[in-house]
Amino acid sequence: MTFLFNSDARRAAIFADAFTQDLPDVAFATDAATVDPNAVRYLITWTVPDNLARYNNLEILFSIGAGVDQFRFDAVPATVKIVRMVEEGIVRMMQEYVTLAVLALHRNLPAYLAQQRAGEWLDIPQIQAGSRRIGVLGLGQLGQAVLERLKPFGFPLAGWSRSPRQIDGVTCHHGEVGLEAMLAASDILICLLPLTEDTRGFLNAGLFAKLPQGAALVHTGRGPQLDHQALVAALDSGQLSAAMIDVTDPEPLPPDHPLWSHPKIILTPHVASVTQPVTAARAVIDNIRRHRAGLEPIGLVDRSRGY
Amino acid sequence: MTFLFNSDARRAAIFADAFTQDLPDVAFATDAATVDPNAVRYLITWTVPDNLARYNNLEILFSIGAGVDQFRFDAVPATVKIVRMVEEGIVRMMQEYVTLAVLALHRNLPAYLAQQRAGEWLDIPQIQAGSRRIGVLGLGQLGQAVLERLKPFGFPLAGWSRSPRQIDGVTCHHGEVGLEAMLAASDILICLLPLTEDTRGFLNAGLFAKLPQGAALVHTGRGPQLDHQALVAALDSGQLSAAMIDVTDPEPLPPDHPLWSHPKIILTPHVASVTQPVTAARAVIDNIRRHRAGLEPIGLVDRSRGY
Repeated sequence: MTFLFNSDARRAAIFADAFTQDLPDVAFATDAATVDPNAVRYLITWTVPDNLARYNNLEILFSIGAGVDQFRFDAVPATVKIVRMVEEGIVRMMQEYVTLAVLALHRNLPAYLAQQRAGEWLDIPQIQAGSRRIGVLGLGQLGQAVLERLKPFGFPLAGWSRSPRQIDGVTCHHGEVGLEAMLAASDILICLLPLTEDTRGFLNAGLFAKLPQGAALVHTGRGPQLDHQALVAALDSGQLSAAMIDVTDPEPLPPDHPLWSHPKIILTPHVASVTQPVTAARAVIDNIRRHRAGLEPIGLVDRSRGY
Repeated sequence: MTFLFNSDARRAAIFADAFTQDLPDVAFATDAATVDPNAVRYLITWTVPDNLARYNNLEILFSIGAGVDQFRFDAVPATVKIVRMVEEGIVRMMQEYVTLAVLALHRNLPAYLAQQRAGEWLDIPQIQAGSRRIGVLGLGQLGQAVLERLKPFGFPLAGWSRSPRQIDGVTCHHGEVGLEAMLAASDILICLLPLTEDTRGFLNAGLFAKLPQGAALVHTGRGPQLDHQALVAALDSGQLSAAMIDVTDPEPLPPDHPLWSHPKIILTPHVASVTQPVTAARAVIDNIRRHRAGLEPIGLVDRSRGY
């Protein structure tokens, strides 16, 4: 019984140690060329390998990242479980990044950075946290964890998901009607949606028009969810005041792309959150144990939903 | 019995409402020219007026701001209590700003901003929160409140004060020996010290040399505490990796000052925290009540200590 690790060597070494210690009856392999394909029960990877069919005893395909939008589901036999990476390292980093982004937008950092470039010492009227409404698109594990971290600051918090949710201290919306209601009351909108056919192009001119004038955007979902041209237009018209963007389409963003130089945008190169190998290895081992005990792995993908 | 308000009209209106409602037996005045000086028992101001002696029944001199370094204590009769502004609005804003600054430095924002200017898509190795040690200079109300907000992120937290303190979840240092110990273990150093003769020029080349190489600085104390030239030298040599600076000397900083354009500095124009009139009025009224009941006002200044 073999676990095949298809990612970088640094993380492989950390996973190998964890498997040796905690799951010694599972062989740990990193070389697809020499592994016995019939022995491979578990595979972790970023993209689905072309020759996936050779692993005819495969039980679980693990994504090394939080998303599975890079997987072509139709290339994965229906008997194979697809599992997203749910591990505390990813969650912690996302909490940090989104808190940073919300506070940066709340405290007018993009405008202060523009003043700094101009050598201008001028204070900007500051809205207090109690009057700055936050709306989170996506109330999965990441969305909920981010809201938890924002609570102590006293922002009014809301969230939106496809199906109804209840979260303490958060006004929860769902469905089409709920979306309109939340957008109309979001001074800072955070996108943490998974990329699916439904969310491709989700952040577009129509959506921006439904936000209060001068709202700000934090985008830590996936690049293809954002209409880049519509973002620039909304910033230029004043409909949006500023944005902090971590994901783009394409990635890397070409050096001459207008998002780089827009004075109201802070842009980071898809670094909000990355899988942390120590905690990820622990999460994968726990999931293999759950699977063997007949339990559902944490982060099991519903193929019909797309995440 | 009169309360004389010597600051801007917008805040005066909010204070006036609060006094009318909660302290109706105290007359509220804003015009020093027409007030009966003998009636003035309480005065709130940013700087000590030249003609302070005319208020010969003055009992409390309130600062409108968190600091009292702008007061010349020798111009204030010994019988008059000097009281700093301690109110939840100031505290909340400082929690926001310092959390923003710590997360910005922790997540390499100054370097990502430099990459953004160059159109460079490149991820920077990320140290995890558990390995990023935070040290706070000054453990008064602001220092403690800031530490409280940083706790959930999992940073190892330490603090330093003149006299010993005990704070849950924070390694507390004090005195000269304690200072050396904390500096040696602070990857991000936060200055929240009051400005006194002891802290003037505190953040200098000698102090920077005691930090781990590549440490970062958050300065939200007072401008004259920072040796601006030493900061630039430490950033240029790599002893410091980055800084987020809210206070300078002088203020406003002249447009051609080198701090504005240093690529490793994020500079804001003394906006980290300002007195919020609604909560400040409540705090001042509570302090007048305490004083009348024979209790010590909150924020009473120890003149020998300077804060």
